[in-house]
Amino acid sequence: MADPLGEVGRLAEATIAVVGLGLMGGSLAAALRGGAGSARQCRQVIGIVRQTDTLPLARKYVDQATTDLGAVAAADIVVLATPARTILRLLPQVAALMRPGALLTDLGSSKAAIVDVMSTLPDPILAVGGHPMCGKEAGGLAAADARLYDGAPFVLCPVPGQPAAAVEQATALAQAVGARPQVLAAALHDQAVAAISHLPYAMAVATVLAATAQAETGGDLRWQLAAGGFRDTTRVAGGEIAMWTDILLTNQAAVLMQLAHARAALDALTAALAQADEVGLAALLRAAQSRRRAMFQPTTGGTDR
Amino acid sequence: MADPLGEVGRLAEATIAVVGLGLMGGSLAAALRGGAGSARQCRQVIGIVRQTDTLPLARKYVDQATTDLGAVAAADIVVLATPARTILRLLPQVAALMRPGALLTDLGSSKAAIVDVMSTLPDPILAVGGHPMCGKEAGGLAAADARLYDGAPFVLCPVPGQPAAAVEQATALAQAVGARPQVLAAALHDQAVAAISHLPYAMAVATVLAATAQAETGGDLRWQLAAGGFRDTTRVAGGEIAMWTDILLTNQAAVLMQLAHARAALDALTAALAQADEVGLAALLRAAQSRRRAMFQPTTGGTDR
Repeated sequence: MADPLGEVGRLAEATIAVVGLGLMGGSLAAALRGGAGSARQCRQVIGIVRQTDTLPLARKYVDQATTDLGAVAAADIVVLATPARTILRLLPQVAALMRPGALLTDLGSSKAAIVDVMSTLPDPILAVGGHPMCGKEAGGLAAADARLYDGAPFVLCPVPGQPAAAVEQATALAQAVGARPQVLAAALHDQAVAAISHLPYAMAVATVLAATAQAETGGDLRWQLAAGGFRDTTRVAGGEIAMWTDILLTNQAAVLMQLAHARAALDALTAALAQADEVGLAALLRAAQSRRRAMFQPTTGGTDR
Repeated sequence: MADPLGEVGRLAEATIAVVGLGLMGGSLAAALRGGAGSARQCRQVIGIVRQTDTLPLARKYVDQATTDLGAVAAADIVVLATPARTILRLLPQVAALMRPGALLTDLGSSKAAIVDVMSTLPDPILAVGGHPMCGKEAGGLAAADARLYDGAPFVLCPVPGQPAAAVEQATALAQAVGARPQVLAAALHDQAVAAISHLPYAMAVATVLAATAQAETGGDLRWQLAAGGFRDTTRVAGGEIAMWTDILLTNQAAVLMQLAHARAALDALTAALAQADEVGLAALLRAAQSRRRAMFQPTTGGTDR
């Protein structure tokens, strides 16, 4: 793969347009543009934002900032970095503006619906789904960080019917920002993130709602007692509503399946506890304990803190 | 409260027996005994362990270590620091060995059942339930730490029919190890910890079980993708089974009520998502978000990380 960008030569020669400059898009742009000790990865980065108010801040992260979606016509690679439902709406519109042979990819958190639409785009556009598995508490362009992608898994979901060049070019892009590209079918990606990200969010939400259901008894005192366990378990419930609504609704089927699994597990725990079935209860707890511990062994790439 | 320990003078003159030297008991003993820059808080600390094997290690944390439960006869204060169900079993036996006017307390994670038994003890024994809200990942005596209690809420649950001296002496004990004593009725304590500790554990267990329910699809890959959200949400599921089984079974009613609340919340989330009811879904997520954020405001004593 000495020359992954067949149409434009090497990535270093490419013009890259990022549509949507929030935390993810802004960080990608900053990593590609380089500066502050890191090398520039491409010829030019164009940032496309919705509102003119954002342009001054955007210019800190890109070479050229504009509100004109038509600017994608100048790009060899276009990255859609908006919420997933906006990506779904923008895909046909952006593809129609792009030049033949250019690559269209995205950073959306669910992939099957996006890859479905990508498979209907006109032939001369290369397309591949993307989902970098990173982020941080604070969102928005002001929190953008050129090192956000360092070492993060960056899932690439091939689009049926597309040439291998699409995945190859996206691989080069992911590597250029320091991420670890990982090719995975969109349906498997969506099941995986439902299990490891979307369900944990739903469970954190349910835990907070349950804990506050009896707020009248015990009053504020219980929050004063809340220790690290509650804080960690519910941390993600403090996340941004618009983003999570978007994620859950675009990964509906896989999340519903995970919710059903979780309710079955809670039913089993409830039954064992209600019957004071110590052996059955301990067996459920032990299954979770051993799986959790196995997951975060060094060999699986995760580390516990 | 210049002289909380009426029978024995000040705490500094007291002999304190700790029954069960795990993380909590060992840390309490170490904090009372002082050393390594902190002051001794009482005259003598006796540690009572089950197995002779533990005696050499125990002697690092106490002035005198023994396997003889009869040693509680020498103590002005006896602290039961075993799992909750062992506390329930030991209470009458230990009370019968103690000298009249001495204080009997405990560090158990659920309180109503323990306080019930305490209320049946013979009159000359002072009794009060205790639950320090601290801990750490590693358990056992080897992980004991004289600073474990520093700044931690230490709930004291009055026993009906007992004189005020019981709570006063336990308050002095909690302060002596650096904790913040907080008096709370046992039933309210149990509801509070069900909400902020026991349910979060059950939810973490269910999240792990659900995430592994489809391990055949996606295989190990999903664990490689698992980011901070999954790790934090499920951290407590890696905890010690014997301890958690004990906690859940001794706080059965309050935990079952919280599990019912959590299932109701999950049902509401599931219904909104299944109907693609964006407004209803966002309302649930927003309720959890605002409550979570309010909980961890600086004024409530918790801090987010």
